Amino acid sequence: MVSLAIRAAQRQTRGSIDPILALTKADMARVNDLILAMAGSNVTLIPEIAEHLISSGGKRLRPMLTIASALAHGYDGADHVKLAASVEFMHTATLLHDDVVDESDMRRGKSTARTIWGNQASVLVGDFLLGQAFKTMVEVGSLDALAILSAASAVIAEGEVWQLAAAKQMTTSEADYLAVIDAKTAALFSAATEVGPVLADKGEEERAAMRDYGRSLGLAFQLVDDVLDYRGSLADLGKNTGDDFREGKITLPVILAYAKGDVAEKAFWQSAMESGENDDAALARAKDLLQRHGALEATIERARGFGEEAFRAASTLPPSPAREAMLGVVDFCVDRLN
Amino acid sequence: MVSLAIRAAQRQTRGSIDPILALTKADMARVNDLILAMAGSNVTLIPEIAEHLISSGGKRLRPMLTIASALAHGYDGADHVKLAASVEFMHTATLLHDDVVDESDMRRGKSTARTIWGNQASVLVGDFLLGQAFKTMVEVGSLDALAILSAASAVIAEGEVWQLAAAKQMTTSEADYLAVIDAKTAALFSAATEVGPVLADKGEEERAAMRDYGRSLGLAFQLVDDVLDYRGSLADLGKNTGDDFREGKITLPVILAYAKGDVAEKAFWQSAMESGENDDAALARAKDLLQRHGALEATIERARGFGEEAFRAASTLPPSPAREAMLGVVDFCVDRLN
Repeated sequence: MVSLAIRAAQRQTRGSIDPILALTKADMARVNDLILAMAGSNVTLIPEIAEHLISSGGKRLRPMLTIASALAHGYDGADHVKLAASVEFMHTATLLHDDVVDESDMRRGKSTARTIWGNQASVLVGDFLLGQAFKTMVEVGSLDALAILSAASAVIAEGEVWQLAAAKQMTTSEADYLAVIDAKTAALFSAATEVGPVLADKGEEERAAMRDYGRSLGLAFQLVDDVLDYRGSLADLGKNTGDDFREGKITLPVILAYAKGDVAEKAFWQSAMESGENDDAALARAKDLLQRHGALEATIERARGFGEEAFRAASTLPPSPAREAMLGVVDFCVDRLN
Repeated sequence: MVSLAIRAAQRQTRGSIDPILALTKADMARVNDLILAMAGSNVTLIPEIAEHLISSGGKRLRPMLTIASALAHGYDGADHVKLAASVEFMHTATLLHDDVVDESDMRRGKSTARTIWGNQASVLVGDFLLGQAFKTMVEVGSLDALAILSAASAVIAEGEVWQLAAAKQMTTSEADYLAVIDAKTAALFSAATEVGPVLADKGEEERAAMRDYGRSLGLAFQLVDDVLDYRGSLADLGKNTGDDFREGKITLPVILAYAKGDVAEKAFWQSAMESGENDDAALARAKDLLQRHGALEATIERARGFGEEAFRAASTLPPSPAREAMLGVVDFCVDRLN
């Protein structure tokens, strides 16, 4: 257990994505090459859409975590590159389908694939990327890694269906919401990091630590995203501020503000989230209510709590640059708010 | 090589799905139980949609073929049930996404999931079923079977994208079209049957024979489907006659009739398939042109050719009830026209 005073000091020096960028630079170049090869097809629509996604400026955090986790466990083979590329394709396939489901027009400041090529192509190219992901991870030949990643695939989709079914219900509780993001976001972070010790032939203890690290980091990451959707600017967020609000997507800040709201405020949230009365004036009022009830701060506090959990889990790793890089990512994820 | 005279006699007695139904009855009951378990989720929308698909009266031909192929190679374990259920889930996921892409309202005489639960749920539940399929096939622990099925998954999606990109282009050639259905239909039949000898630890020769059998059967099956779309009634087809026409889906009968058409007929096909002038009067004219140019008969001839190929491939199997059942399916697929 790391004391909070030490943690606060560490946060100053460690809250950076630079160490993991440096650590994974050479391997990520291989991941990028493999991603381009996996997106290759005579059906030109596939590389076109894949190229759009690849160039859209995602941080590639998940594959970097797979690389870092493998290195942190002393893995010196080449298969972490394949698993990292597969993890990124699973993520990309999910984004393609999410944008169709959410009818999103912008992501990371660029038009979504569905607005350029249509929903049909987005659904089918997503399926192709998922198929390529499975094919590539099968090539690695680790049944344990396959079990982790295929289970994550089912859990992610289940979480998405759950969110769809629960969407626009202001009765969604904090526990409900955490269960949704545990499935739709944290499961892939958790799988991405758990395959590291699996590749390095480590046991259940090491796997459990990486599962915890990835899961807690994923939860913190999603909660910070939820806050950024109300607080960030397009430049630092890369998507439209207020998107969640306009899509009637109920996130933790809204759940917390609703719980503290009076009768009139509850009625406002219901008409905004359930009945789609979500114009710019409504968004301004929503931001005001979130501020008044400290809902963004409270969400950040929960994100910090998950960040602490991720930090503790990665602290069990033997000292190495990979460990430092994984610790740095935790504070980067939480601190990108500031 | 079986002489055509013998084949004609055999077709009389063997052109039936009854032997494979009898052969796989006990195992298919297990497949059905497993399918229900795999569709289970606390997210009630998932079992609801899965139940709709399960009860919609598909023949479950693909999982029956996996069971039969395993039995034909002397397999006496239990894992063929898991692979068969996975194959059916891969197929079901494809149907869910296809109906979204094609905007289909009816399938097998019932409303499609997307008309009841919406496109969003259809996309996400399809993803869930695919995830469950991978998870279940990983449990079997055969890397060879995983390689076959994951490769098929990518190929199927690639074929679907190809069809989407080529849709409504009357320049589509017969070779183009065969390549599309090779990917989107035949690849899964081929994978479904190739995993049989893999489970039974047979070598490349046996695997190649089952690949050929499944692929040729899948091609024959799809071509017969294409004919039925213009010739069948709703009762024996289970989907709306003329669906392909109304969706501007260019199939082999249309390609053959177009090739033989004069200038006026070519203009008709272009306005029907490319510009969407496909009302009932246009469908009647299309049927008339298909008839006049013998395009349905020519398509059936090609289906019979692929059927012969499938028959020859399965004829290499040692004599057994499973072999007879697999031979019977070939003629059933071709003869369901009559």
